Amino acid sequence: MEKKIQTAVMGVTGYAGMELARLLLRHPRLAGKPPIFFGRTEGAPEPLAAVHPQLMDNNGTGLGPGGLQIEPFSWELARARGVDALFLATPHEQSREWAPLALEHGLRVVDLSGAWRLENAANRAVYKFADEGSPVATAIQTRAVYGMPELHRDEIREADLVANPGCYATSVILALKPLVSAGWVDTDRGIVCDAKSGVSGAGKAPTAKTHFMHAADNLSAYGVFSHRHTGELLEQLVLAPEQIVFTPHLLPIPRGILSTIYVWFRSPKQSADVEALYRTFFAESPLVRIFPAGQLPQIQYSVHTSYCDIGFHLAPDGRRCVIVSCLDNLLKGAAGQAVQNLNLMYGYREEDGLV
Amino acid sequence: MEKKIQTAVMGVTGYAGMELARLLLRHPRLAGKPPIFFGRTEGAPEPLAAVHPQLMDNNGTGLGPGGLQIEPFSWELARARGVDALFLATPHEQSREWAPLALEHGLRVVDLSGAWRLENAANRAVYKFADEGSPVATAIQTRAVYGMPELHRDEIREADLVANPGCYATSVILALKPLVSAGWVDTDRGIVCDAKSGVSGAGKAPTAKTHFMHAADNLSAYGVFSHRHTGELLEQLVLAPEQIVFTPHLLPIPRGILSTIYVWFRSPKQSADVEALYRTFFAESPLVRIFPAGQLPQIQYSVHTSYCDIGFHLAPDGRRCVIVSCLDNLLKGAAGQAVQNLNLMYGYREEDGLV
Amino acid sequence: MEKKIQTAVMGVTGYAGMELARLLLRHPRLAGKPPIFFGRTEGAPEPLAAVHPQLMDNNGTGLGPGGLQIEPFSWELARARGVDALFLATPHEQSREWAPLALEHGLRVVDLSGAWRLENAANRAVYKFADEGSPVATAIQTRAVYGMPELHRDEIREADLVANPGCYATSVILALKPLVSAGWVDTDRGIVCDAKSGVSGAGKAPTAKTHFMHAADNLSAYGVFSHRHTGELLEQLVLAPEQIVFTPHLLPIPRGILSTIYVWFRSPKQSADVEALYRTFFAESPLVRIFPAGQLPQIQYSVHTSYCDIGFHLAPDGRRCVIVSCLDNLLKGAAGQAVQNLNLMYGYREEDGLV
Amino acid sequence: MEKKIQTAVMGVTGYAGMELARLLLRHPRLAGKPPIFFGRTEGAPEPLAAVHPQLMDNNGTGLGPGGLQIEPFSWELARARGVDALFLATPHEQSREWAPLALEHGLRVVDLSGAWRLENAANRAVYKFADEGSPVATAIQTRAVYGMPELHRDEIREADLVANPGCYATSVILALKPLVSAGWVDTDRGIVCDAKSGVSGAGKAPTAKTHFMHAADNLSAYGVFSHRHTGELLEQLVLAPEQIVFTPHLLPIPRGILSTIYVWFRSPKQSADVEALYRTFFAESPLVRIFPAGQLPQIQYSVHTSYCDIGFHLAPDGRRCVIVSCLDNLLKGAAGQAVQNLNLMYGYREEDGLV
Repeated sequence: MEKKIQTAVMGVTGYAGMELARLLLRHPRLAGKPPIFFGRTEGAPEPLAAVHPQLMDNNGTGLGPGGLQIEPFSWELARARGVDALFLATPHEQSREWAPLALEHGLRVVDLSGAWRLENAANRAVYKFADEGSPVATAIQTRAVYGMPELHRDEIREADLVANPGCYATSVILALKPLVSAGWVDTDRGIVCDAKSGVSGAGKAPTAKTHFMHAADNLSAYGVFSHRHTGELLEQLVLAPEQIVFTPHLLPIPRGILSTIYVWFRSPKQSADVEALYRTFFAESPLVRIFPAGQLPQIQYSVHTSYCDIGFHLAPDGRRCVIVSCLDNLLKGAAGQAVQNLNLMYGYREEDGLV
Repeated sequence: MEKKIQTAVMGVTGYAGMELARLLLRHPRLAGKPPIFFGRTEGAPEPLAAVHPQLMDNNGTGLGPGGLQIEPFSWELARARGVDALFLATPHEQSREWAPLALEHGLRVVDLSGAWRLENAANRAVYKFADEGSPVATAIQTRAVYGMPELHRDEIREADLVANPGCYATSVILALKPLVSAGWVDTDRGIVCDAKSGVSGAGKAPTAKTHFMHAADNLSAYGVFSHRHTGELLEQLVLAPEQIVFTPHLLPIPRGILSTIYVWFRSPKQSADVEALYRTFFAESPLVRIFPAGQLPQIQYSVHTSYCDIGFHLAPDGRRCVIVSCLDNLLKGAAGQAVQNLNLMYGYREEDGLV
Repeated sequence: MEKKIQTAVMGVTGYAGMELARLLLRHPRLAGKPPIFFGRTEGAPEPLAAVHPQLMDNNGTGLGPGGLQIEPFSWELARARGVDALFLATPHEQSREWAPLALEHGLRVVDLSGAWRLENAANRAVYKFADEGSPVATAIQTRAVYGMPELHRDEIREADLVANPGCYATSVILALKPLVSAGWVDTDRGIVCDAKSGVSGAGKAPTAKTHFMHAADNLSAYGVFSHRHTGELLEQLVLAPEQIVFTPHLLPIPRGILSTIYVWFRSPKQSADVEALYRTFFAESPLVRIFPAGQLPQIQYSVHTSYCDIGFHLAPDGRRCVIVSCLDNLLKGAAGQAVQNLNLMYGYREEDGLV
Repeated sequence: MEKKIQTAVMGVTGYAGMELARLLLRHPRLAGKPPIFFGRTEGAPEPLAAVHPQLMDNNGTGLGPGGLQIEPFSWELARARGVDALFLATPHEQSREWAPLALEHGLRVVDLSGAWRLENAANRAVYKFADEGSPVATAIQTRAVYGMPELHRDEIREADLVANPGCYATSVILALKPLVSAGWVDTDRGIVCDAKSGVSGAGKAPTAKTHFMHAADNLSAYGVFSHRHTGELLEQLVLAPEQIVFTPHLLPIPRGILSTIYVWFRSPKQSADVEALYRTFFAESPLVRIFPAGQLPQIQYSVHTSYCDIGFHLAPDGRRCVIVSCLDNLLKGAAGQAVQNLNLMYGYREEDGLV
C-alpha cells in the first residue's frame, strides 16, 4: 500500500494559498492526510475556515477548535509532523529565504513565487533580490527546475526545488512553445503578447489598484516593457528582448487570464498543420486542451479548472496567426500547476486531483 | 447682473469630491468662476486632472501647470480668493473641526459628512465625536440644518451650515416620509428597510472590504442594527428604534443605491391613493421622480443623475406595501444634493446644474 | 460489491443541467458509469463539450466523436441503456408531461422544475398548468415528495418522484423553518424576505432581462407579491399569504442567492439560544453551515459549493432578528440539491459527490 | 439671432440612440428646440421615457402624454415639423434605404451605421448590401464624407451625408494616424491592434453573446481577421490588409473601448518626439486628450465623455511602441462623434454640448 506523503503549505491566507488548500484537501492520493497549514512563526493557531469561510465544511474544516488550523511555523514542528513536501505560497522575498532552509531540512519544495524561476541574472534584476549573487542563492538556483510539466516533465520528477511558473508566463509559453520550437515563427518580425488578467493576480493586499472602484467597469494596461514575467518568456522561448512585446492588462473580473498572441510565420501554413502541431506537442499533456482550428477558448471555459486552453485563427494569407490562450491564474497559473508538479514529484498521475 | 459666488471644495480627492468638482465646473450659474479646490494645508499644488483624469479637458483642467490646481489650504488664501461657500467633502472628524472655523470666517458651509446631521445626542453616540457635548459643538449643531430640500427647503435657504444627508438616509427618508407623515403606516408592526449600495459608498481608502475580490461577484450585509445612518431615519421620520430595521448591503457595482422598504398600512389603501399621496408630497420637488403604481425604479435609471426615483407595489390586501427607492449615492446621495442645497442657499433654481 | 445505478439527464443544455453533468461525472458512487445525456427527441447526437466547453476534458468528454454525447431521447433508448434514475432539468410544462411517463416506465425521477412542488391548487395557479386538475396530474402530485432533505429526509428515501425545491425557496425555508416551527416568530407581525439572486436564475434564454446591459451595474426588484416560489414558502412554513412578503431582486452577478429575512420574536431571546436552535435543527444536515451568532454569510462563501449558509443578527431588544441565508442557486438551489436527493434515494451518504 | 435648427433621430430606442437623445436634449445651441424622435412608420406614439426611464425628467420628458414622444415616422411629418438634420441610429440595411430618401427631401444626414463609410467595394463586401453597385448607391457613396472631424473637418462642414465612423475604428485610427502619416511606422513589419469593447457595442438585441452569463466574468476574442471595421482602418490609414491585424474582444463591462496598438518604428525615436507628434497633430482637436509619455489612459477615464484618450509607451530601444487609446463606444464611438459632426455642419463649436 502506498505511503501517503505529508504536505504543508506556507502562505495559505492568500488567494493561491486558498486554492492550494482546496485542491490538497480533496486530492485522492492524499485522502486522510490533510496538509498542514503554516502561518506566521508566532501567535496562536486560528481556524482555516476563519480566514477562508469558503473552505468550511462540516467534516473537519469548521470554525471550531476541532477544525483544521493555521499553525505557527517552526522547523521543529515541521519535523515532528513529518512534512515531506512544502508549498511556498509566499512573497518572493520570503521564498528566497525559506527555500534554502527547507532544502537543508530535507524537504522537497514547490515555490509559487518568482524567487527561483529565472536562470539569467539580467532577467532577475527586476526582482532586486537582496541575496542576488550570493553563493547560496547561486547554488539553489542551479537546483531549481522551472515547473512547467509540459516542457520539463522529466526534470520535475527528480527535482527537490520546483519554481512554479508565473500565471501570465504559463499562458504565453504554452501557446508559443510549439510554434517557436518548430521554427515556424518569424521572430525577427516580433511577437506580440497582449495578455489580460483578473484581479486576483494582483494579490490580496488592498491597494489603489485592487480597489473595486479602480478595477470595475475598467480596463488598464500596466507594466508595459517592464513586467516581471517577461524574463520567463525570454528564457523558456529562447528569445531576445527585442523579439517580443508583452503587455498585461487588468480585467474587471476576479480570475482568469486570456492572452492574445500575434505571430507571423516564416512561410505560409494551413490551419490543419497548425492544429496538428499543437496536438502532437501536447499529446501527453492531460492539462492542455487544444481547440479545433478557428474555435477560440474564452476565459469562462477554464476558470475553476486546472486546464490551459489553446486555440488559434490563421489569416487567409497563411502567415499571420492569432493564438488565444486561457487559464485560471489561480489554478493552472498557480495552485493547480503546483499540484501538477507535486504529482510528478511523487509519481502520481499528472492530473490527479485536478480534473 | 447677478454677482457670481465663489465656491470652494475641501476634500476633492474622494469620490464625492470628484462629482462635486464635475457638477460645479459645469454649473450654469457659476460659469466663468470655477470652484477653488483645497487640499492638504501644506505642500505644492497639484493638477486636479492628475488626481481625476476623468475631469481633464482641453479647456482649463488639463494636466499642465495652467490647468486647475488643488491648492494647499489656508484661511488667508480663502479670504484672498473671496470664497463665499465652502463644501466640506471630508471625513466627519475633520468636518467637526472645520465647520466652526468656516462659519467664524463668515463662509456658508455645506458639509457632506455625518458631522452635523443629528440633533439627538443618543443618535450621535455611534460617531464618538471627540468634541461631543462641548459648548462650541452644541452651538454649531443648533445652527445646522438637515439638508434635504424636499423636507426642509425654507430652512436651507437661510442656513449658513447645511448638513448634507447620508446616502442611504436620503433614499429611505424620501420613500417613507409621505406615508409616515400621512399617518398611514402601522409603525407598531415595524418598518423594514433593506438597502443595497454600490462600493463607492465605502470610500476611496483601499480596505479588505473595498478590494475587488471581496466586492465582485458577491453580496454581503453589514452594520446590522448599528449603521450610522439609522439616527437620520429616526429623527427625520420621528420613529423609535424598535419601529424600524435598517440593513445595508454591499453591491458589486460602482455606484447606486436601491432600498426596498416594507410597510403595513393601518387600513387598506388603493394604489391610486398611494401614488397620489406621493405625487402631492413631491409636487414642488424637481429632483424626485415618482413612478406609476406597479412600476419600479431600478438602479441604472438614476445613476449619473441627481434624481431620487420612487415606486411602489401594493399587495392585493391593500395593507402590505413594498416601496423601492433608487438614487446615485454620489449625486442625490452626496454631491448632487449638496449642489441642490447650494442652489437654495443662493436663490438659484433648485435643479440648476443638476438636470 | 455495490451495483452502480445508471443516471440520465434531460435538459443538460441549461445552466442547472450543466452543473448536474459536472456533479454526476465526478460523483464517486457513479464512477465509471457516466450519466446519459438526453436532448431533443430527434436529430443527431452532439458532443456535450460542444455545448459546454467548460466540461471538456482529455478523458472522455472531448469535442470529438469519442467524447460524451447528448443523444436524442426515446423510451426505447432509455430502456436499452438501463436507466434507473432520471433528472428532469426541463421547463415545468415539459416536466408535467414527462414525469408521469417516466414513472410509468419504472424510473425514479428528480424533477428540478416547479411542476410538482405544490400540493395546494391555489398555490399552483400561478403556473397555469395545462393539465391542472386532471386525474393523472392529481395522482402524480400525491406521489411527489418535496425534495428538501433537511425537512423530508425519510420520505425522499422512499420517493419515486422528488420535486426539487426552488432556489429562492430553499434559501428562505431553510433559514426560517427552525424559528417558525419552534413557535418563536410572531407571524402576525409579518415576515419579510428580501431575496437577491444572480442572473443564472433567470435561465439561459436571451431576453431583455438577461441582457448584460440590463443586469450589469444594476439592481432591480421583480415579481413583487407574485413570484412563483411564494407558494413553496407558504406550504413548507405553514403560513398564510398575509403573514409573509417575499421580494426577489436581480443581482449583477452570475450565480448565488442571498436572502435577508426579518422576523419579530414573540418574546425576547438571547443570541446563544437562536444559534443553539439552528445547530440542533440542522445537526444531522451535512449541507447546511450555521455561522456563529453575529457573523453573517456572504454570497461568495457558498458559490461553487452545495452548501446553504445561515447566519443571523439579533437586535439588543432580543425581538427583532435579521437572518441571512446564502447558497449557489445552481447547486444547493438546483443541481446540488438534486444530487443530494439522489443520494438519499439510493442509500448513499447525503453529501456524496457534493463536498 | 441664430436660427435654431430642428434635429430628428431615427432609431432612438437603441443604446446609441439613447445617448444621442441625452446629448441633443442638453445641447446649448438647440435649447428650446428638442429633437423629434421617430420610431416605426406606424402605430401610436409612445413616451421617450417609457423606453428610456433614464431620460425621464420633471421638465418635459416624463412618462405622461405631455412628455416627449417617439412618433411614427412619415416624410410628411418630417416636412411639417421642419426637420433640418436627421440622425440615423439605425441598422445599416435601413440606413442604405433611408439616407438617399432623406437627401432627396433636402435633409442633411448623419448616419451612425456602417452603410456609407467605405469607398472601396472590396472593403464593403463584408456588409453584403442588397443595393451594392446600384447607380443610386454609388452616387450616394460619392457624396458621403467619413465623419471623423480630426481627419476630415473641412469636408464635414460642407457635407450633407456624414458617415459616422465605427467605434473600434475611431479608437484605432486616431491612435495610429499621426504615426502612420508621419511615415514613422515600419508597416511591413505589421501593426497589431488588440481592441476590447464593452457589451453595448454588441447592440440591444438579446442574443447568446449579449446574455449576462456569457459576457460577465469572461473575455472572448471574436471576428478575428473578419471584423467589419477593418475596412475603415485600411482606408483611413492607407494600409494593405497584410500590414495590420485587428482583433476585437468582448469585455465584461457595459461601455468603453480600449485598444492596445503595437508598432515598430523605422528608426529609433525619443518619447518626447512621439508625444510632440501627437500634440501637434491634435492641436486643434478639442475632443482628443493626449497623455504625457509613459502615462496610459484607462477605460474609466473616458466613459460618459466624448473624448478619445491617447497615451503611449516607447521601449528602451526606441523602436517598439505600444499605444493605448480609449473612448466611450456610445459617445466618441457613436453619438458624441455624431453630435460633433452636427456641430461642424452647422458652424457651432466642435465641442458644443459635448464637454
